[in-house]
Amino acid sequence: MNGADSLCDTLLANDVDVCFANPGTSEMHFVAALDKKPQMRCILGLFEGVVTGAADGYARMADKPAATLLHLGPGLANGLANIHNARRANTPMINIVGDHATHHLQYDAPLTSDIESLARPMSNWVHRIQSSDDVSPSAAAAVEAARSGPGGIATLILPADAAWANAPAAIQRAAVAALAPVDSDALQAAAAALRNGRKTVILLSGKALRGKALETASRIAIKTGARLMAQQSNARVERGAGRVMIDRIPFSVDLALKALEGTEQLILIGAKVPVAFFAYPGKPGVLVPDSCQNIPLTRAGDDLGQALEALADAVGADSTIVPFTSERTATQLPTGALNAAAIIQTIGVLSPENAIICDESVSSGRDSFKSTFGAAPHDFLQITGGAIGIGIPMATGAAVACPDRKVILMQADGSGMYTLQGLWTQAREQLDVITIIFANRSYAILHNELKMVGAGEPGRNARRMLDLDNPTFDWVHMAKAAGVEAARATDATGFADLLRSALARKGPFLIEAVI
Amino acid sequence: MNGADSLCDTLLANDVDVCFANPGTSEMHFVAALDKKPQMRCILGLFEGVVTGAADGYARMADKPAATLLHLGPGLANGLANIHNARRANTPMINIVGDHATHHLQYDAPLTSDIESLARPMSNWVHRIQSSDDVSPSAAAAVEAARSGPGGIATLILPADAAWANAPAAIQRAAVAALAPVDSDALQAAAAALRNGRKTVILLSGKALRGKALETASRIAIKTGARLMAQQSNARVERGAGRVMIDRIPFSVDLALKALEGTEQLILIGAKVPVAFFAYPGKPGVLVPDSCQNIPLTRAGDDLGQALEALADAVGADSTIVPFTSERTATQLPTGALNAAAIIQTIGVLSPENAIICDESVSSGRDSFKSTFGAAPHDFLQITGGAIGIGIPMATGAAVACPDRKVILMQADGSGMYTLQGLWTQAREQLDVITIIFANRSYAILHNELKMVGAGEPGRNARRMLDLDNPTFDWVHMAKAAGVEAARATDATGFADLLRSALARKGPFLIEAVI
Repeated sequence: MNGADSLCDTLLANDVDVCFANPGTSEMHFVAALDKKPQMRCILGLFEGVVTGAADGYARMADKPAATLLHLGPGLANGLANIHNARRANTPMINIVGDHATHHLQYDAPLTSDIESLARPMSNWVHRIQSSDDVSPSAAAAVEAARSGPGGIATLILPADAAWANAPAAIQRAAVAALAPVDSDALQAAAAALRNGRKTVILLSGKALRGKALETASRIAIKTGARLMAQQSNARVERGAGRVMIDRIPFSVDLALKALEGTEQLILIGAKVPVAFFAYPGKPGVLVPDSCQNIPLTRAGDDLGQALEALADAVGADSTIVPFTSERTATQLPTGALNAAAIIQTIGVLSPENAIICDESVSSGRDSFKSTFGAAPHDFLQITGGAIGIGIPMATGAAVACPDRKVILMQADGSGMYTLQGLWTQAREQLDVITIIFANRSYAILHNELKMVGAGEPGRNARRMLDLDNPTFDWVHMAKAAGVEAARATDATGFADLLRSALARKGPFLIEAVI
Repeated sequence: MNGADSLCDTLLANDVDVCFANPGTSEMHFVAALDKKPQMRCILGLFEGVVTGAADGYARMADKPAATLLHLGPGLANGLANIHNARRANTPMINIVGDHATHHLQYDAPLTSDIESLARPMSNWVHRIQSSDDVSPSAAAAVEAARSGPGGIATLILPADAAWANAPAAIQRAAVAALAPVDSDALQAAAAALRNGRKTVILLSGKALRGKALETASRIAIKTGARLMAQQSNARVERGAGRVMIDRIPFSVDLALKALEGTEQLILIGAKVPVAFFAYPGKPGVLVPDSCQNIPLTRAGDDLGQALEALADAVGADSTIVPFTSERTATQLPTGALNAAAIIQTIGVLSPENAIICDESVSSGRDSFKSTFGAAPHDFLQITGGAIGIGIPMATGAAVACPDRKVILMQADGSGMYTLQGLWTQAREQLDVITIIFANRSYAILHNELKMVGAGEPGRNARRMLDLDNPTFDWVHMAKAAGVEAARATDATGFADLLRSALARKGPFLIEAVI
């Protein structure tokens, strides 16, 4: 067995059995190793941003890491934007980055670059394998790093000679880190705060936004009068009719300040103190009042569900309290003109039980969260790091993790352009993804931001940088190029008809919704 | 005037008047500043790899830098692969990377990342602007850095508050660095080597591969019996019928070793000691024999043309010597089946005088250099850093720099998938680019590399990672999606007909050549 075989076996022994890949020459021994192991599912992305974004979507739904296979520094660089999103989502991920053979680095061959410097900003853990002896222990350490805390990015650099040289047969298993129990001082502080009568927000993120944990949180809120909110960006929320209703902090600084106005105490459960996504002249960066006391209940790596149970016990929020859940309100299909609201309303009505709704609709879909409270129960996955181009890959990965569930992607056109190669992977793997393009033919968010800068009406240069017109991009042709069936909707009824028929079939479908 | 205005004015004052851009919120003040200056040509790329690759192609042909505008760490990351290629091409480039306002960084907002760590591996110079007072001096320093030596990558980080705050009206001009004359010791050493009767190769790159410099080099070779060669990868070569004939070092290690076998002396002019692109078990990394004496005539920043003149003087290679030039041999169109050789042969026959031929045909086009010696005189631009996805952007940028010349791009399908968004920019700017897709529907280079690994016949996992089939990607649909007219060729005569008609019209056209 060589180092590449050792790596493949170590991943499999540690329950990592999906590899999103875009390999190159320096990874050929690893490709040969993967080829011997049909139990490893290898999925090709035609660009590395697809590879890493799919690994993110996969792990969010599978609750375990996938591996990615990337080709030297430039291959890693191409995948970094979506690794950035994954890091912000606390997604477990193991990036295998091939590099030149160790003895070849001295020559500064054309593809040589400082991979560590590229990897560090977007990784929680970076390690360069020293030799083939080091492969299995390093790979096991990568799995541990990916699984540690709430989940993290482990980047493992694999020199070609470590892959091709003989390796010991011993395969390392990663230690399974138990989630930590809540700190008792933190618990007491939070419980005391919930009893002192001040205006309190309980801010949730991570696995606190899953079914049972959310129900516990809702009971605590009802018992104590605190207000429950989710972070602005979250990896995954279990929600919809019959599930706990929880709003998230608005994206807009002004709306967020308003939503958090007067908050005296903020209890953080898997969440961070909320800050403005961007700075604006004269506006604050922190979204809670200066006088607000921030009370972190949990640390990275704490069991959020257990922490909520303990808090519920401490404040007497017992199981007799009925959580506050959403009702099935989304039943009325819109008619008339097609616009963002009509698209989202239609999705709310038609999305089937247990759908996975992915959201990179950006400005068009700012209200998508609010507007789908009353949809059938679903998982809601969103962009977490602000690096656009996660939508198509994330939906792709989620569909790989959950082949029996419908994935519905709300995709802004400008962001969708970034990683449209992912459609081909959906076609090849015959993934059950419906991609809905919000085709407003502009970077609408930026038009709004330009207004906020006080630049007045955009002139030629600004329009040339913010509009996606002249020519408009034809998503139906694009999807067909990638082997995905597609159609265009221009009014609300037509859109509903298309979505209904897309839901009735299997395999990928794209709807260009012109708004 | 604010910092953003100061930046825009400083770029314009220093003859940087093209900005390839994909801006975001943190760059809105700069967008507003650009909007006031119609003399700055702003060109939108729908993905940052298009932006940076176009800036590379532009600078190779314009011999001056363009600016790029990128959005924080992830936007830079998306552009890094082509910045890597540009760095390997010694391309002058000024990357403006927007960042959060300085006071906002402390909050670790979702889009925050360590931009310097990302930038350094692919930049010759990195600087973070400290305040709006610092904008113009920093921008002038960036221009100087981009122009220094043979050309380099300057990455300038622009915090949003430095852009929006008031700035001094004074606009800095970059010092114009004169190219250095050749070092006299190096000159004597090279001249002595050329007289000692040993088997000598003169290896050229950079501006030594332009018209007059090449002619001087050819005279030196004829006079001294030395052999002239170009590096494997070069930013730009002026060649074709009537111009100096110079071959390049082969990509394949075995062929390169054979080509350089017995070389006793290597004189380096703008070039590096040739090394294997990748390491292979049991094969050497350096491509000249161990005993070969390497004699660098020039240093970074030397005037290569002047160095060649001085060397010619030193060895008595005067202007009476007629350089060895290519003849117009490409006149016979192929017929029958379409394959890579037939495509290249057809391009050789039909490409018009003064065309810009861009090459990212990878394995299909390994012989494209050899096969176009006898084409009409042209510039030949190629991938320089091995980071695939440069072809479409590079052709786009070259066409912006040279609106009166035909650009012909030889594009492998696998590599073309990386930055296909560039087709839209060609359509919007109505650039005169003919993109020829070598549609072999596989990463053919990797099939070959897998064979070299000795992995035997590829199984399911390997095939799923190396083949681009099931479904095949439809480039004609893709081009039409982006607003570029396109057609498919399946035999040699059909291909020639399409190329001829594409050459007869203006504006972008794509030919999917199925091979």
